[in-house]
Amino acid sequence: MPRYRLLIEYDGAAFSGWQAQANGPSVQNAIQDAVHSLSATRPEVVGAGRTDAGVHARGQVAHVDLPKPYGAQVVMDALNAYLKLADKPIVILDAQETTDDFHARFSATRRHYFYRIVNRRAPLAIDRDRAWHVIKPLDAALMHVAAQRLLGRHDFTSFRAAACQAKSPIKTLDFLSVERVGDEIHVRAHARSFLHNQVRAMTGTLKLVGEGRWTPDYMPRILAARDRQAAGPNAPPEGLYLTQVDYD
Amino acid sequence: MPRYRLLIEYDGAAFSGWQAQANGPSVQNAIQDAVHSLSATRPEVVGAGRTDAGVHARGQVAHVDLPKPYGAQVVMDALNAYLKLADKPIVILDAQETTDDFHARFSATRRHYFYRIVNRRAPLAIDRDRAWHVIKPLDAALMHVAAQRLLGRHDFTSFRAAACQAKSPIKTLDFLSVERVGDEIHVRAHARSFLHNQVRAMTGTLKLVGEGRWTPDYMPRILAARDRQAAGPNAPPEGLYLTQVDYD
Repeated sequence: MPRYRLLIEYDGAAFSGWQAQANGPSVQNAIQDAVHSLSATRPEVVGAGRTDAGVHARGQVAHVDLPKPYGAQVVMDALNAYLKLADKPIVILDAQETTDDFHARFSATRRHYFYRIVNRRAPLAIDRDRAWHVIKPLDAALMHVAAQRLLGRHDFTSFRAAACQAKSPIKTLDFLSVERVGDEIHVRAHARSFLHNQVRAMTGTLKLVGEGRWTPDYMPRILAARDRQAAGPNAPPEGLYLTQVDYD
Repeated sequence: MPRYRLLIEYDGAAFSGWQAQANGPSVQNAIQDAVHSLSATRPEVVGAGRTDAGVHARGQVAHVDLPKPYGAQVVMDALNAYLKLADKPIVILDAQETTDDFHARFSATRRHYFYRIVNRRAPLAIDRDRAWHVIKPLDAALMHVAAQRLLGRHDFTSFRAAACQAKSPIKTLDFLSVERVGDEIHVRAHARSFLHNQVRAMTGTLKLVGEGRWTPDYMPRILAARDRQAAGPNAPPEGLYLTQVDYD
């Protein structure tokens, strides 16, 4: 049973999230349907990141075991042809045959997320469902200073969803930057792994710093509180993109 | 009757174009409906560029005469509130009271267009309807060389739609650049005014250069032919954005 590694892009607005579930269309289910149309089998497609409803991906990685070798290009083109026919905004950017010890989720050494804020008075037309619209002017430089206080190994309980299934709230945040580009604010976060909603909770917290409601010095106190109520509310899902997953 | 100048963004995928017409929803009609909800009058909203079906705008300019002064911020917010309720992907980015001699179309001194190509094997998920998907690898540097051969004052009949209503096919092209950014190719075009479909016809022609089918030296021959059949086919509308209109 050859194992394939897939690189995947999707528009999260159309889905109830990555993971297959009883109600609502999932990205995982759509790709499993595509695999079935190719192979007449329905193996699990295992993703690196279980993105929530509305969250996008430009570089999700998954693996799947097919009953026989098809050639990587055949797999990519067949899955894309099915997804296009089914009118699903999901695309396989690349497919490669890999080894049995490759696991999209457990072998990942780093995940990269990008969060896009549009900071202006007018609502969004072209970028609706693709960015967070924030009207109040944000100080991106101050947000970046605050972001640096969250780097390193911490108990991130204050930035963790109640539904989070991780065994431990201790994570190491390798990189967190905030940059203004015209009327947009771009947040980038890199870590081996994140808690459920961690990037959205951090972004929602930094937004309060950008508004002037909290100072960067408040960040260590939020971490120390180990209480979800101590941090800001989650930034909405439509601004979040899983952009890259690294492996050794 | 105070005149207002509007700066407008819209997602062209939802419309049959800027101009009001019998069949299909137009951007102009949607904004005229919004003006009616504010003022109980239905004056024409005159746009700088009559974009085709599927073409987007990040900086369309229009003017409209309202029966009384409302304050520019009130106009902007009221039109946006109506357009949001009507679920139209159109946003008024800015509104200003202006003078009677300002005409969005005839006073314009320069129009800026941006054309976005995604050049990769995999189809588009997030950017569907927002870019032209070209599979065959394109040589952007060669396209840029060819683009420079189109600059200046020429008879652009070879790049003109049959339906074009301009009195003369003579136009002055001030700027045309082609740049690769990752797997995207960005074309930028600036001129006082363009013929109908001129940017799409030039982009479709440059794409054939990028594929290696035509050389840059072929550009002067296309211009000299004064025949639409001599140039390449129109690039599709979904990659085109009206980004800016200048006035003195």
